[in-house]
Amino acid sequence: MTENLPTRIAVVGGTGPQGRGLGYRLALAGHEVVLGSRDAERATAAAEELAQQAGVARITGAANLAAAESAGIVLLAVPYDGHAQLVTSLARAMAGKIVISCVNPLSFDRFGPYGRNVLAGSAAEEAAELVPSATVVGAFHHLAAPLLLDPEADLSHEDVLVCGDDIAAKERVMALAADVTGGRALDAGRLRLARQLEPLTAVLISVNKRYKTRSGLALTGLAPAVGKVPA
Amino acid sequence: MTENLPTRIAVVGGTGPQGRGLGYRLALAGHEVVLGSRDAERATAAAEELAQQAGVARITGAANLAAAESAGIVLLAVPYDGHAQLVTSLARAMAGKIVISCVNPLSFDRFGPYGRNVLAGSAAEEAAELVPSATVVGAFHHLAAPLLLDPEADLSHEDVLVCGDDIAAKERVMALAADVTGGRALDAGRLRLARQLEPLTAVLISVNKRYKTRSGLALTGLAPAVGKVPA
Repeated sequence: MTENLPTRIAVVGGTGPQGRGLGYRLALAGHEVVLGSRDAERATAAAEELAQQAGVARITGAANLAAAESAGIVLLAVPYDGHAQLVTSLARAMAGKIVISCVNPLSFDRFGPYGRNVLAGSAAEEAAELVPSATVVGAFHHLAAPLLLDPEADLSHEDVLVCGDDIAAKERVMALAADVTGGRALDAGRLRLARQLEPLTAVLISVNKRYKTRSGLALTGLAPAVGKVPA
Repeated sequence: MTENLPTRIAVVGGTGPQGRGLGYRLALAGHEVVLGSRDAERATAAAEELAQQAGVARITGAANLAAAESAGIVLLAVPYDGHAQLVTSLARAMAGKIVISCVNPLSFDRFGPYGRNVLAGSAAEEAAELVPSATVVGAFHHLAAPLLLDPEADLSHEDVLVCGDDIAAKERVMALAADVTGGRALDAGRLRLARQLEPLTAVLISVNKRYKTRSGLALTGLAPAVGKVPA
């Protein structure tokens, strides 16, 4: 595990449930978080609401571009609709940085959720194509937003699967993931495996509907996280 | 859970590790199993070897076609290469039956495993297109063959995710899955979600290589299987 110094992290799409939830948990772990939104005022309002929670140190809001410009790590937590345009608009602000994608390209019809076809293979690979100088890492696809936002919810039994082609960046994100859940982050392999991780969320949503729960992912056959009791 | 009377099950591709492993566990649970292979003699030899294991009741071998003709349920446990041709050749024998697919369309290159593009979406959907009168159910994609074949390996903490469009057939397969693992089977939703379940195996293989283990899948947020202690 790499050293995990507090890092200023921009959450693009930070007023959506996933973005707010991840921003909250990252701030709770001591990181400086700036929630980004198309609308800076909405971002500020969301940040102020989270800042009132116990244990949250530094969380602010800004327009997506200003948020991305101000941070060393950019977390993309946006819907897939409009993803390419948004990433393109932030390309300069994300150049040379670690960009974490938790974007899940899903659609829904009367049969439920399903994975969308993405020309680049996955949203994470699309971001990497659009911003070649960024180091894109896929992570946080499977954590349920309501649990992230619930201070009482224990996420330490959920695995965060992290994929990427840059080992150092991946380890950095794995350390952040452990901060978010208090549990285990796993190196899932190359960035292209985001093709599998992203639409797997359709299965979890389907299971949630069938069993009226909020399911998450855990892998068997691995030792528990250091210092953690297995769930 | 539906009643799960012993059923004669043909395992097409039953001499491969996954087929032998599933055949072994099904026979151990009291089901009558016929291992199928392109080569009837190889199938018979594999069946005879498994039949020597303690607790295995009825397991025999036959050519794939004869095996499929003789059984009420057909389990496809073949590599994706040649899948369409094989399924087509068995179409008449599988007509009107429950067909379980655990086929994982994967390829490997120097960067590791990855999910293949399948025109039909998934191997399971391909089988359903080729044999419209069959009721195709996807299951058993993520159980590691060496663990299936190891009488000492406890699989009860692994979830078998089952997808299909026919509720009754899906429940039947979920009961078989519980027989195989002694654990939990989960209704993952529609058959098209096999597009997610099949290539997820690439992630597990990648994790196995990284952590030198045999990983499996478990979902969080669900009650343990009836009568089972959570792992």
